[in-house]
Amino acid sequence: MEHFEARLQKLAEITVKIGVNLQPEQELIITANLNEAGLVRRIVAEAYKAGAKNVAVMYGDEQNVLARYRYGSQRALEYAPGWYMDAIARAHQEGAARLAIYGDNPALLKDVDPEKIAIHSRAQAQAGHRISELISGFAVNWSIVSHASPEWAKLVFPQLDEVQAMERLWEAIFQTSRINTADPIAAWQAHDAELQTRIRWLNAKRYAALHFRGPGTDLQVGLAEGHLWAGGSGVAKNGVRCLPNLPTEEVFTMPHRERVEGWVSATKPLSLRGQVLEGIRVRFEAGQAVEVQARQGQEVLEKLLETDEGARRLGEVALVPHSSPVAQTGILFYNSLLDENAASHIALGRAYVENLEGFEGASEAERRARGYNQSLIHVDWMIGSDQVEVDGISSDGRSEPIMRSGEWVALPSS
Amino acid sequence: MEHFEARLQKLAEITVKIGVNLQPEQELIITANLNEAGLVRRIVAEAYKAGAKNVAVMYGDEQNVLARYRYGSQRALEYAPGWYMDAIARAHQEGAARLAIYGDNPALLKDVDPEKIAIHSRAQAQAGHRISELISGFAVNWSIVSHASPEWAKLVFPQLDEVQAMERLWEAIFQTSRINTADPIAAWQAHDAELQTRIRWLNAKRYAALHFRGPGTDLQVGLAEGHLWAGGSGVAKNGVRCLPNLPTEEVFTMPHRERVEGWVSATKPLSLRGQVLEGIRVRFEAGQAVEVQARQGQEVLEKLLETDEGARRLGEVALVPHSSPVAQTGILFYNSLLDENAASHIALGRAYVENLEGFEGASEAERRARGYNQSLIHVDWMIGSDQVEVDGISSDGRSEPIMRSGEWVALPSS
Ligand SMILES: [Zn+2]
Ligand SMILES: [Zn+2]
Ligand SMILES: [Zn+2]
Ligand SMILES: [Zn+2]
Repeated sequence: MEHFEARLQKLAEITVKIGVNLQPEQELIITANLNEAGLVRRIVAEAYKAGAKNVAVMYGDEQNVLARYRYGSQRALEYAPGWYMDAIARAHQEGAARLAIYGDNPALLKDVDPEKIAIHSRAQAQAGHRISELISGFAVNWSIVSHASPEWAKLVFPQLDEVQAMERLWEAIFQTSRINTADPIAAWQAHDAELQTRIRWLNAKRYAALHFRGPGTDLQVGLAEGHLWAGGSGVAKNGVRCLPNLPTEEVFTMPHRERVEGWVSATKPLSLRGQVLEGIRVRFEAGQAVEVQARQGQEVLEKLLETDEGARRLGEVALVPHSSPVAQTGILFYNSLLDENAASHIALGRAYVENLEGFEGASEAERRARGYNQSLIHVDWMIGSDQVEVDGISSDGRSEPIMRSGEWVALPSS
Repeated sequence: MEHFEARLQKLAEITVKIGVNLQPEQELIITANLNEAGLVRRIVAEAYKAGAKNVAVMYGDEQNVLARYRYGSQRALEYAPGWYMDAIARAHQEGAARLAIYGDNPALLKDVDPEKIAIHSRAQAQAGHRISELISGFAVNWSIVSHASPEWAKLVFPQLDEVQAMERLWEAIFQTSRINTADPIAAWQAHDAELQTRIRWLNAKRYAALHFRGPGTDLQVGLAEGHLWAGGSGVAKNGVRCLPNLPTEEVFTMPHRERVEGWVSATKPLSLRGQVLEGIRVRFEAGQAVEVQARQGQEVLEKLLETDEGARRLGEVALVPHSSPVAQTGILFYNSLLDENAASHIALGRAYVENLEGFEGASEAERRARGYNQSLIHVDWMIGSDQVEVDGISSDGRSEPIMRSGEWVALPSS
C-alpha cells in the first residue's frame, strides 16, 4: 500500500485534471474547511502547474458557524453577506471554475435550534442565489470531492477510535476515487467512457418504463416523455468537460411523475435529518407513494412526504452496478456524494432539468404533462442490490434485460 | 502567571473592544493566516457577542503564496483577483470594520526572485487600490494585532528552540498588549487617555522645533507649519473611535522637510530589506541627510536614500517614553508594529496627512512650503533611549523640557 501522502497527492491530481479539468489561464475558486489544508495545498500547487492564473481558497471554519448560532444576534441570523456572494458569482461569470471539498461534520448543528438554522439558511440561499444558478446551470466547470473529517469518520465507524476511523474513511475515499489503481487518470477516463457508452445505449432504447424485481420489490417506473439519460462527465456552458462528482458511478434519468406503480423495498438504511431510517417499504399508485412503512423512522418519512405535492412522487431513477467501487466497500457513508453511487436508487421530489429533452423551450404545463416533477425536496434512497433485476419496457410492451444480479447486461458489440 | 488560553482570550477581547471597537450591527472583516485560527475563533466569538451582524474571516495561507511563485505562470504573477478586492472594498463602503492579524513569516519570500515579487506586488496594489484608500482614508474603524508565528519567533530569539521562542514571543505580545494587567480594558483606556492628554498639551504648545540631545545626537527637528500631533485612538469617518495599532505607545507629528539640522545616532539596530543595520549616524542640513554612516549595512542605507528626493528627508518624528512596555521588553522584534513603540523615532520618507492641519484644502505647493514630505518610502528608526533628552523650541527661540532621561516631564496640573 502506498504512503498516505502519495495517495493524497494523487487525489489532488485527479481532482484538478479529471474532476475540475482546469484549463490554462483559468481561475479556480476552492471552498474548503480549515482542517482540509493538507489536501487543499496540494490541489493549489497542481492548479498552478496546470496554468491557473489564480487559485482563491475560501476557507470556512465550522467553529465560526457555531459561534454565529451561539452568540449572534437575530440580525446576525437574518444576514448573509451579499458583497461576498456577489463576488463569487462575478468570478464565475468571469470564467472561474469551482471546486468544493466536502468533509463537513454531519452532526455540527445537532444542538442548534432548527428555527435559527432555517432563518439563516434562508438568508444564505437568497444571498447565494446567483451562485446557485450559475453552478446548477453548469455555467462553468466544477467538481466536488470528499475529505475525511474526525466527526464524519466516527459516524461511519462508531466502533473504532478516531484515528482508526479516519484511516478507514480515507481508505474508502481513496478506493472509491480509484486512487488505488496503477494509473488513476486512465482509470477515470476508461470508467467515464463506459458510462457514456451505457448512456448512449439507454438513450437509443427510448424505454417507456423500467421494471425492478427483487426481495420485496416489484416496481414499474414509467419514464418521462423525452427523457434523457445522464451521468459521468458533462460539458459546461464554457465548453469545458468536467466530472462534477468524484466519485461517480450512476447513470440516471427522469421518471414520469404519474407513472410509477407497485411495491419497492429499500436495500440500505437512509440517513435523513439526523435520523437513520431502516426497513423502508413504499407502494406507488399512479406515481404517488400511497402506502409507506419503515421499521425505524416511519414518522420522519411521513413528515418528508408531507413537504409538498411533489414530495410523494419521483424525480430521479438511477442505475448503479453492484460491482461499483463504492458498493464494494460495503460502507454506509451517511453522505449522498458517496452513498448514491453504491446502488441503483430512486429519489423522491425534484427532477433534474438535464434529464428532459427541450426542457428550456417547454411550458410549465407541458413539462408536467411529459412527467417532470417539482418539489422542495430531493431525497435519494437505495433500491438496488445483487438480488435486484432491472428490465427495460419498450413502448410496445416488450421487456429487455438491463441488469441481472445487480450487474449491467453485456452491451451488444457494435 | 495566567494560563496561555486565558490570556489569548483577553487579547481577543481587547482586540474587539479596544482595537476595532466593533459596534452592534456592524460587520467585521478579518484577514489572518491559517495558523492563527486559535486567536481568530476567540475574536469571532467576541465579535458576535458584541453584536456583529457578520464576521467574515478571509484566511490566507503562506504555502499557497509560495505555490504561486513556484509553479505559477507569468500570467499568474501579473494577475490579482479584482472580484475579490472589489468585494472587500464594497464591504467597507457598506460599513464593515477591518481587523488584520499580523504573524507573517518575515523571511517567507527570501528565495523568491525579487523581480517576480515586484510584478505580483504591483498587480496586487493595483487591484487593492480602493481598499488601501478606504483604510488609509480612515473610512471605517480598523486595527492590527500581532500573533506569534514559529518563523518570526526564531528570528527574534535565534538562540532558543522553536517552542521556547514561541513562548517568549507570546509573552512579549501579551506584556506589550497590557494583557498581564488586572484589567486590560481599563489599562488601555487609561493609557489612551494619557496619550490624548499629551497630544493636547503638545498641540497647544505649537513648538517650532524639537531638540534631541544624547550620546552622538544633537539634532534639531523643525516642525511643519500647522503640524498636528496624533497617536493612540482616532475617530474614523464612520464616527467610531478605534485604536488602529495594538499596542501603540507613540505620539507623532510632521517634521518640516527643509528644517532638520545636526547629527543623530540610532539607538537600536534597524531591520531593513532582510538586513540588520547597526551603528547608524546621519547628519542633516536644511532637512536633507547629507552624511550617512553605518557600522553595518551602510550600502543598504545609501541605496534607500537614493529611492527619490523625499527619501533623504523626514516624514515623521515620534516620541515614546523609555518606560513603555515595548521598550521594557528590551527585544528587537523586526516588526515595526512593535519596534516603533519601543523608542522615540524619526522616519525617512513619506509624511502622514493627518499630521497637517487643513491638508485636504491645501495645494501641492502649499503643503510642500508648510513642510510636507513625499516619498515612496517610510522607514522608522529609533533615536530615543534613557540617555536622550528632548526639548521643545518655541517660535521665539525659548527652550522647554519635553523628555528627561527618556521620560515625559510631568504635565502641569490643570
Ligand atoms: Zn442519483
Ligand atoms: Zn439524486
Ligand atoms: Zn511612528
Ligand atoms: Zn512611522
